[in-house]
Amino acid sequence: MTNWTLAQRAQRMNPSVIREILKLTEQPGVISLAGGLPSPDTFPIEVLRDASARVLRDTPREALQYAASEGFGPLREWVAQQLQAQGIAHADAQRVLITTGSQQGLDLVGKVMIDAGSRVAVESPTYLGALQAFAPYEPAVEALAGDDEGARPEAFAAARGARFAYLLPNFQNPSGRCVGDARRDAIVAAAAEAGVPLVEDNPYGELWYDAPPPAPLAARAAADAAVYLGSFSKVLAPGLRLGFVLAPQALYAKLLQAKQAADLHTPSFNQRVVHAVIENGFLERHIPTIRARYKLQRDAMQAALGKHLGGLAQWTQPRGGMFFWLELPADIDAMALLPKAVERGVAFVPGAPFFPGAARANTLRLSFVTVSPQQIEAGIAALAQTLGDVVKRAA
Amino acid sequence: MTNWTLAQRAQRMNPSVIREILKLTEQPGVISLAGGLPSPDTFPIEVLRDASARVLRDTPREALQYAASEGFGPLREWVAQQLQAQGIAHADAQRVLITTGSQQGLDLVGKVMIDAGSRVAVESPTYLGALQAFAPYEPAVEALAGDDEGARPEAFAAARGARFAYLLPNFQNPSGRCVGDARRDAIVAAAAEAGVPLVEDNPYGELWYDAPPPAPLAARAAADAAVYLGSFSKVLAPGLRLGFVLAPQALYAKLLQAKQAADLHTPSFNQRVVHAVIENGFLERHIPTIRARYKLQRDAMQAALGKHLGGLAQWTQPRGGMFFWLELPADIDAMALLPKAVERGVAFVPGAPFFPGAARANTLRLSFVTVSPQQIEAGIAALAQTLGDVVKRAA
Repeated sequence: MTNWTLAQRAQRMNPSVIREILKLTEQPGVISLAGGLPSPDTFPIEVLRDASARVLRDTPREALQYAASEGFGPLREWVAQQLQAQGIAHADAQRVLITTGSQQGLDLVGKVMIDAGSRVAVESPTYLGALQAFAPYEPAVEALAGDDEGARPEAFAAARGARFAYLLPNFQNPSGRCVGDARRDAIVAAAAEAGVPLVEDNPYGELWYDAPPPAPLAARAAADAAVYLGSFSKVLAPGLRLGFVLAPQALYAKLLQAKQAADLHTPSFNQRVVHAVIENGFLERHIPTIRARYKLQRDAMQAALGKHLGGLAQWTQPRGGMFFWLELPADIDAMALLPKAVERGVAFVPGAPFFPGAARANTLRLSFVTVSPQQIEAGIAALAQTLGDVVKRAA
Repeated sequence: MTNWTLAQRAQRMNPSVIREILKLTEQPGVISLAGGLPSPDTFPIEVLRDASARVLRDTPREALQYAASEGFGPLREWVAQQLQAQGIAHADAQRVLITTGSQQGLDLVGKVMIDAGSRVAVESPTYLGALQAFAPYEPAVEALAGDDEGARPEAFAAARGARFAYLLPNFQNPSGRCVGDARRDAIVAAAAEAGVPLVEDNPYGELWYDAPPPAPLAARAAADAAVYLGSFSKVLAPGLRLGFVLAPQALYAKLLQAKQAADLHTPSFNQRVVHAVIENGFLERHIPTIRARYKLQRDAMQAALGKHLGGLAQWTQPRGGMFFWLELPADIDAMALLPKAVERGVAFVPGAPFFPGAARANTLRLSFVTVSPQQIEAGIAALAQTLGDVVKRAA
């Protein structure tokens, strides 16, 4: 009898609640506002086809061979320059690590920084994928006290001794919230005062619809005070799995060793294709087209919510990203609401799984990027009907 | 002052010794027999270019979008069929997990199965990348007693209680050794008797030059007794980073959750490109061309060793894979020999880093696949001169 004893940490690994929810919602005829995917209409297919052909014509042997764990040199240089342009003056290609999506960046940070029982502070709600990446390393996750502007500076004194604070300042998944300029300064100062390292995740920063977000936390912090994670998933295509980490010197060598142990390196082919796409300023032309498209959809959802859910829910129009975050009346459980909504032909993601501790069950997340304005209108109308039924029945 | 406290496990992560060695050997004019890379002359560049274009023409939105963590369905089916053809009757696509190279398979196995202090049994010498993948999970690594035929069956009783035994039966890196048919049966029986799960790694199985290797351990073991890892790196191209794991039911769900946390999924683009390449039997035509090329080089190295190192070293001609393993006179330290060899214009990898415990310092690994027969002859001649100098000086 073969004796499979699993590691203690395996108990912390669980199927993604959201993944299970998405299965439920993948039914014909259901308008899904549940997804976390970018719109495939934004993928620059022709450009990627040309770049793939070019890479396999010009440097096939390098693109198909084993490569350095740090990543493709010119891509690391490009990333460093972008980060400098965003105000991270100390961004240096030597401290850029190319990862297999920014999800891998989160895994590597967890691997290198979390012991069983280590305290890790996060926003509440926060990105579920980060909680999943950290979970196998068995942290004690704590919620940073927050308000509509993000984590409160006072929360960092309470987080003193945490291995790091994980923050998503730009158009957060799931809340859509963007931390303002003054609050960013206050967070960086408070984290420094408490000696808490910052792990800043920025997958959505380029997706702004009104004005660019304020400069990143890493641009305001000392060079050794923050790790910064970025991704090409939302501005090019997630199926390429390409992200990056900018890490302080003290951490970089260990992240690199963890990366090497994890998958040797991110596919050289993908790195070279993406570099071939972006090296001549393609994103400067491409990203505005994504913004224009998503802004229309954001505006359509704002209008539909105002029309149908005015008295029934609260929300703030997001100034970027992919999501609206709704707060329902206190006695409504969004998880229980979901099957009823699916019956009515619309799906969303309940908010509870995004909370590290005590969940606000009366919250939900709506994505507006993979659906047309017409579908948004119909979906929100169906959601309002579902909610109306439940509120009426309770009355 | 920001307080970066690293996880305990980070102490176990170290720069790859071999990586450092390779830096030393990358000098113009040095014939490198040190690498572990396949020959880029074997990469099917045109075929990959066509497949990339086809995937981005026919299914671009799927290839560039987020995808299932398990991997691309048709690729999982293909892998299952291949494994069935190799005699693993219970291979089922539902238990195939596509990984970002088989290195990631090793990481996930470690993540799910190793606690700090868990016993893990390995061959001695063994694949260094596996030791590196497991190291962050802080195992107590033990060497399985072995001989020229591989691990000895008696060794498994001593390994009772180990979380698993990691074995590379086909043309092992670094030793080149192929475990024979009877020994495989004996290993599987002994591991079952001791209740020790097997983790079988097979990156080199298709690279045989005389006769195919015996059926894998997983084909001889109960369906719940072995994990099997495979890779497209040596038969197509490593820069695509594509491997797979076949896991027992009990383990599959946890490996999948670990995979999802680690990088969400392996690039969909790469999975679809490789599937487009292989779906119509391409590998059946392509792999024989790799075998023919490498066999010539293997024969050239065997001839050169016989000619130049006859009295100075011992080796067994490998029947497949990429490496010769040399045993020098007992008082020669291959690590100390390396800089002298580089001066003479040839590089190799000292054997010591491949040993989990007590190292045999008088061993070294030679790769024959990225060098021409002429370079092999010149390189082995230079190695013989280096060794001759040292032996003479010692006499």
